[in-house]
Amino acid sequence: MTKRKPIPSLELVAPVLTGKVAAIARLLTRAEIGDEEASEALAEIYRHTGQAAIVGVTGVAGSGKSTLIQRLVAAIRNGSRTVAVVAVDPTSPFSGGAILGDRVRMHSFANDPGVFIRSMATRGALGGLARTTLEAVDVLDAAGFDIVLIETVGVGQDEIDVLRSAHTIVVVSAPGLGDDVQAIKAGILEIADIHAVSKCDRTDSSKTLTDLKNMLTMNMSCQQRSGWSSPVVATSALDGQGTVELLDHIDNHLAFLKSSGEITARRQRIAEWRLLQSAEDLLHSEFVKHRDGRLSSFTQQLMSRETSPRIAAKQLVDNIFRENRS
Amino acid sequence: MTKRKPIPSLELVAPVLTGKVAAIARLLTRAEIGDEEASEALAEIYRHTGQAAIVGVTGVAGSGKSTLIQRLVAAIRNGSRTVAVVAVDPTSPFSGGAILGDRVRMHSFANDPGVFIRSMATRGALGGLARTTLEAVDVLDAAGFDIVLIETVGVGQDEIDVLRSAHTIVVVSAPGLGDDVQAIKAGILEIADIHAVSKCDRTDSSKTLTDLKNMLTMNMSCQQRSGWSSPVVATSALDGQGTVELLDHIDNHLAFLKSSGEITARRQRIAEWRLLQSAEDLLHSEFVKHRDGRLSSFTQQLMSRETSPRIAAKQLVDNIFRENRS
Repeated sequence: MTKRKPIPSLELVAPVLTGKVAAIARLLTRAEIGDEEASEALAEIYRHTGQAAIVGVTGVAGSGKSTLIQRLVAAIRNGSRTVAVVAVDPTSPFSGGAILGDRVRMHSFANDPGVFIRSMATRGALGGLARTTLEAVDVLDAAGFDIVLIETVGVGQDEIDVLRSAHTIVVVSAPGLGDDVQAIKAGILEIADIHAVSKCDRTDSSKTLTDLKNMLTMNMSCQQRSGWSSPVVATSALDGQGTVELLDHIDNHLAFLKSSGEITARRQRIAEWRLLQSAEDLLHSEFVKHRDGRLSSFTQQLMSRETSPRIAAKQLVDNIFRENRS
Repeated sequence: MTKRKPIPSLELVAPVLTGKVAAIARLLTRAEIGDEEASEALAEIYRHTGQAAIVGVTGVAGSGKSTLIQRLVAAIRNGSRTVAVVAVDPTSPFSGGAILGDRVRMHSFANDPGVFIRSMATRGALGGLARTTLEAVDVLDAAGFDIVLIETVGVGQDEIDVLRSAHTIVVVSAPGLGDDVQAIKAGILEIADIHAVSKCDRTDSSKTLTDLKNMLTMNMSCQQRSGWSSPVVATSALDGQGTVELLDHIDNHLAFLKSSGEITARRQRIAEWRLLQSAEDLLHSEFVKHRDGRLSSFTQQLMSRETSPRIAAKQLVDNIFRENRS
């Protein structure tokens, strides 16, 4: 039996652009593993992006954000728009489900071509989570999905980088997680465009809502500067309370960005982040190439305390890029 | 009134090495803000490191890891050893406490010179969390603390990088957080040298203990390869149950690393990580320098979709390092 040659990534671009699911899935996998062969195709994909509304949804584990996203996906479909979900939350049932086995999945959408769900591996990746996630978002954007939701737990620099690449950021808080407003603790209060409080069927949710609103009042000054005042939406996964309202706020926020011209600043910030992420990845791959060679001599010097990490790094980077030039 | 000139960082090295608290605190701040002036001093500090036992303690928010650390600090002091805590967990009361105001602090240790506690800022840092944290650990190591505890929530690449720089990693799980073993979900099960289950005064903790032990049995093959079998310790912050046992396991693990020679592999891995972190930071600072200049022209090209992030990053890096050379 001869092994079938894989389809060149460049040949996947055309079917991705017409929304072919198999091609999308395949290109996503190649983006995720950082396949060098795919970089030309991803560059081509990038040229066709910029149409989708990119919405980041974040909240700590147990905040109910995954269930809220399910409701949100249903609401988007009810309005006949298409939606893709990229889960980069290691605690998400979408990405964590494969291990625990008994988690909620998005079964109800399995036969709907207007919904695409993808979980990104967060383990073992030598850097690159942010870049590969954003390349996945590119593929789904270019494939024509109206809305791309990025689900993340919002802790750690990588995840915050991913969030910063969204047009609209929804932060999900929940009552009874040991603290009233978890978003503050995670340091993501100030990046929220919209606050959703989940589990509002619970009696202790009113305290969470009040605390959050008070907190926002205190922070009012910085909000008014941008002209957008982040709404607080009470939601419940039990009866779907607040889902339509949340979607309305998401739409309103994008409309606000466009009408105020703020969208340009945001797009510029996103482009800058992408550039930084890609450069970091470039550095990583150069390092991996040299791991057994000159990298190891620097490592030895560090272990014997002959040099310091900053000095050694400077010499090594200098070394690698000089060689690339000659 | 003339403004007093700050003490040059290099002059702080000698008092840090003799354990002077004011000098330690000052150098930590300069390391944290990434002060270029401090880099020579930090290089000198690095030469005096390698004596402390570096212990990473991780667990999701609400796992009770902060309370466990308080107990652990007390146990270490009972044994007359000195200990420093570096909190890089954005959900930690040590770092998050400043905002919420009403959180538990380590008041009881405030007058004990054998304990030093430092929380690292995780917000606003353009990269660099891992590097600055490890430089803080260097300062405390060189200052002569016997044990340096690094507290992190263990989610996100940055935090996992920090953990990988510890000699011993303790993963804290708790009953009743919506999932039985949160560590698995966060993908950190396999990096644990020791498992601690908190809140074992609760009746539902036995299920957590059993689940965790079963999970470890399934993973036995990879553990036996290294010769160390990760113990599971039942702890309770209420009565201090398991704290002494946990400290014994930490000591045993370090003894195992030394007797098995495994410590060399671990030190090599740590040195490699440090090198990568520092190189990344170098790249970041070069980028920041060029933000208003050539960086912005690449950003413009990205926004207009004339180029892709990977291609633009390659050109920019090439550009920056070529100029540095000439």
